[in-house]
Amino acid sequence: MSDEFDLIGLIIAALGDAATGPGVVVGPGDDAAVMEVPKAHQLVVSTDTLVADRHYPAGACADAIGYRSLAVATSDLAAMGAEPAYATVSLVIERLTRGWAKRYANGLAWAARDFGIAIVGGNVARGPQSITVTVHGHVPAGHAITRSGGMPGDRIYVTGTLGGAGLALGDEGLGECSLDALIHDSPLGRYWMPQPRIALGIALRGVASAAIDISDGLSSDLAHLCRASRTGCDAELSSVPVFAGAQPLDAAAAGDDYELAFASAADPSVIENLARQAGVAATPIATLHEGSDSAVRWFDHGVPVQVREGFRHF
Amino acid sequence: MSDEFDLIGLIIAALGDAATGPGVVVGPGDDAAVMEVPKAHQLVVSTDTLVADRHYPAGACADAIGYRSLAVATSDLAAMGAEPAYATVSLVIERLTRGWAKRYANGLAWAARDFGIAIVGGNVARGPQSITVTVHGHVPAGHAITRSGGMPGDRIYVTGTLGGAGLALGDEGLGECSLDALIHDSPLGRYWMPQPRIALGIALRGVASAAIDISDGLSSDLAHLCRASRTGCDAELSSVPVFAGAQPLDAAAAGDDYELAFASAADPSVIENLARQAGVAATPIATLHEGSDSAVRWFDHGVPVQVREGFRHF
Repeated sequence: MSDEFDLIGLIIAALGDAATGPGVVVGPGDDAAVMEVPKAHQLVVSTDTLVADRHYPAGACADAIGYRSLAVATSDLAAMGAEPAYATVSLVIERLTRGWAKRYANGLAWAARDFGIAIVGGNVARGPQSITVTVHGHVPAGHAITRSGGMPGDRIYVTGTLGGAGLALGDEGLGECSLDALIHDSPLGRYWMPQPRIALGIALRGVASAAIDISDGLSSDLAHLCRASRTGCDAELSSVPVFAGAQPLDAAAAGDDYELAFASAADPSVIENLARQAGVAATPIATLHEGSDSAVRWFDHGVPVQVREGFRHF
Repeated sequence: MSDEFDLIGLIIAALGDAATGPGVVVGPGDDAAVMEVPKAHQLVVSTDTLVADRHYPAGACADAIGYRSLAVATSDLAAMGAEPAYATVSLVIERLTRGWAKRYANGLAWAARDFGIAIVGGNVARGPQSITVTVHGHVPAGHAITRSGGMPGDRIYVTGTLGGAGLALGDEGLGECSLDALIHDSPLGRYWMPQPRIALGIALRGVASAAIDISDGLSSDLAHLCRASRTGCDAELSSVPVFAGAQPLDAAAAGDDYELAFASAADPSVIENLARQAGVAATPIATLHEGSDSAVRWFDHGVPVQVREGFRHF
C-alpha cells in the first residue's frame, strides 16, 4: 500500500499528455484546476457515477473500467451537441495498488485521447469501489441541444445499433477485458469501449430539435424525451437498429450502448448525410405527435407491442 | 422505495431557487447543464468525495451531510481565489427514502445559498453511501492563486481557528445534528457547517503568492504548499490559532476545519485589513525559506517539536 499522494502522482504521471490540453491553465495537483472557455461559448457539464458490482464487475480490468467511466459521462456531452474538453475523476476504492492505479489511469488516458478530453483533476478516497466522472464541454452560445425541444411531427432517430453491450452482460468473460484485447465491434468491445457520438452531436446543432443519451435504455429514454418535450410518440420496434445477435425487445430496453436518440424535422436525407459524415448510422424509428400524456406507444410491424422499461436505478 | 426519477424530481423541487442562478442556461433534469462563464474569466473546477463512515457517520442528519458535502468542495475554490458559481452532486446510497432525499436537498440548498452556488446537475445511484461534489467557480483570467507561487521570505498565514471540528469527532453526538439545531461556533457547528473563506480568497488575488485549503491538516497541507513552491518552511506551533478547548498539537494536524493557509510578502497590516473586511482572522504562523527539501520544521516557542501528519486517505 502506497501513500495517497504517491498514488496520485503515479496516476498523473500515467495520464501523461491526457492530463493537459489546449485551454488548461492549471491541471491536476493543485486545489482546483483552471481552464479557459472559448469566447462566445457556453459551458456544458454532466456527472455520472459507476458503482462496482452494480454498473460493472469490480474484478474487471482496471483499464477497461477507466475507459468506460469516461465514455459513459462523455455520451451526455454528445447528446447536448457539446465538444468535450475537460473532466475530473473521483475514485473511491478500498485498496489501491500501484498496478491497479496505473492500469486505471492508462484506460482513462486512452479514452481521454479518443474523445479530446483533458483529465484536469480528481480525488482518491478509501471506500467501497465507485467512480464519479464530471465532464465539461463547450457549445456556441445558445446552441446546446436539450431534451425539451421536440415537436409533433419530428422524426426520432437512433444512432448506431442497440443491444450489443447487453449481449456482453450475459457472457462469463466480462471480467477479462484488457483494452488491448478488445475488439470494437464485439459485445465486450461495445460494453467496455462505448463510443460517444460526439461528431454527430456537434453536426446536429440547429438540426435536431431534441436529443438524449440512451443510457437507461431506448424505451425509458424515449419516454424522458417525450415528457420533456410534452409530446407523445409512436415507435416501431422492427425499425430499431439491432446489434447482430441481439433481440429487438432486448435492444429497445438496453442502455449500455450509449447511443443517442434525437428528434428532427429535417428531411431524412439531410440526417443521413450528416450521419455518414460523422461515421455512424442514424435510423428513423418513431414520430412525435401531440399528446400531453407523454406516452410512447410501441408497434411491431404496426401491431401494438409491449416493450419493457430500461435500467432501474433503485 | 420510490422511482429514481420521482426522487430526482423531489430533490430538484426541494433545491428550489438553489438549482438556478445568474448564468444558468439549462439546470438540472437534462443530459447536462449549460452555463455562462463571465467574459475575461477562467473556469476553476474541483471535485471532492465524502465516503460514509469514513469521512462522516452514515447515520448523521441528511441535511448536515448535504451542507458539509458542498462546503468542503467549495473550500478548494476559496483557496484558488475563485468566486463560486455552480456545482454538480453525485449521490450513491443503498436506500433512498423521500424523507432522506428531501432533508439532504435542504442541506445542499442551505449551503448553496450561503456560498452563492447553483446546483445545476447530479446523479443518483444505488450502492454504499458516498457523495461526490464537483464545484465550479470563476477568476479573472490569470488571477487564480495556486499552491506553487510561494517565495522564500513570504509569511504563511492561517485563517480562523483550527481544531474545532476535531473536538466534535470525539463527541458522541456527531449523528444528532439537524442544521437548525447547530450553533456555528460550537465544535459540531464547525464540523457540519464549515465556512469556506470565499471572501478572503477573492481579496487575496494578487496579494497571496500561494494558498491551500487545509483539508488534510495544517501540518500536511503546509508541506504540500512548500513542495509545490519548492521552498522550506519554519512554523511556530504557539502561533497557530486554536479553537477554544483544542490542543495546539491536535489543531496543527486536524483537517476538518477547512480553513486556508496562504503565503504573502505583503505587509502584515495589509493582510490584517483584508482579513478584517472579509470577517475572518488571518494569523501569521510561519515563514518560507530557501530549501529544496520542502521540509516544514515546527517549533514551540522556538524549541523544535514534532507535529504529526494530518489525515491519511489510505
